[in-house]
Amino acid sequence: METRSPTDRTRVRRLPDRGAYDRETIFAILDTGFVCHVGIVESGSPVVIPTAYARVGDDIVLHGSSKSRLMTVLGGGAPACVTVTHVDGFVMARSAFHHSINYRSVVIFGRGEAITEERAKNEALHAFMERLHPGRWDAVRPPNPQELKATAVVRIPIEEASAKLRTGGPLDDPEDMTLDVWAGVVPVVLAREAPIRHVPEHA
Amino acid sequence: METRSPTDRTRVRRLPDRGAYDRETIFAILDTGFVCHVGIVESGSPVVIPTAYARVGDDIVLHGSSKSRLMTVLGGGAPACVTVTHVDGFVMARSAFHHSINYRSVVIFGRGEAITEERAKNEALHAFMERLHPGRWDAVRPPNPQELKATAVVRIPIEEASAKLRTGGPLDDPEDMTLDVWAGVVPVVLAREAPIRHVPEHA
Repeated sequence: METRSPTDRTRVRRLPDRGAYDRETIFAILDTGFVCHVGIVESGSPVVIPTAYARVGDDIVLHGSSKSRLMTVLGGGAPACVTVTHVDGFVMARSAFHHSINYRSVVIFGRGEAITEERAKNEALHAFMERLHPGRWDAVRPPNPQELKATAVVRIPIEEASAKLRTGGPLDDPEDMTLDVWAGVVPVVLAREAPIRHVPEHA
Repeated sequence: METRSPTDRTRVRRLPDRGAYDRETIFAILDTGFVCHVGIVESGSPVVIPTAYARVGDDIVLHGSSKSRLMTVLGGGAPACVTVTHVDGFVMARSAFHHSINYRSVVIFGRGEAITEERAKNEALHAFMERLHPGRWDAVRPPNPQELKATAVVRIPIEEASAKLRTGGPLDDPEDMTLDVWAGVVPVVLAREAPIRHVPEHA
């Protein structure tokens, strides 16, 4: 993906100062997350499904069961929208109106393409797992042919994409600044907690 | 919303043991979150936008700028899909294939209705803020008529909805249980951090 001008669809229409289109910003947001929301259209109605993703080069890669409706639709090249959102904080203003949320999001429009060739599929899954936990692929049992067959992998090129974000404190009206109310930001973060080891029942 | 049988659209087709349709489960998932992903269709293509939400009774309530394209489309009654997802953990299995994510999600299909009457709009925004921070509404300056006018509020009835969730550890194949690799769950949680007070520049 080259840095490019936004299309009509990706241009952030509201609050244009919150829009960003550069590759670095978009990739940084994508590389911070693991779960996206994928939109497809079925019988004229929108369907939004959460699923794991990884950025691999200039593609978003998704995977799922070969029998999954979502993967079948995406692999068939239907128009899709992939959205990734990180919530960073609650913005508490002095007026109800100026309350907000700090966030970083990326919206990608595109059409998927099924990755069916065994070697390419394996490479995509390898990249996927390395994103989740570097070094993990070499530690675990790799997929066998039946598992590879049961897994559908789809790539969606990151071509038509935009980022939108809000940072910083509340933007109160000047006349509200003297109100006696706590104002500021409550940061939130998706934190990893202490791992819980799995103990087999008959170990 | 009554507990009801799933429609063709909300029935969880893959892994049906992960599907739940009861009101209690669905409301509990909705009441844990603050940001949803809303899907609409524009020119035949899906568009997925993150936005804040609150459950108010049997409705999902969204709000935004009166000039927002999303709010205009939703308020006009276009078919919409509202999805709420909480990521609870990374499931690390002994094989690549059985890695997974623990999560709780709700998918709602419906059509929005603009709330335009001033009193009803104010009540919706009140409920919204109480969900974010109980007691906050009475502490801050309430919306003035101009702010109310600048704010669009839409309700979407929670009628056609389903929950899907995964909990617990990895489900490895029996023959992989003796592999010498760490397996278990890395829990993740959206944690609130220490609030950062906003100090006006000329305080």
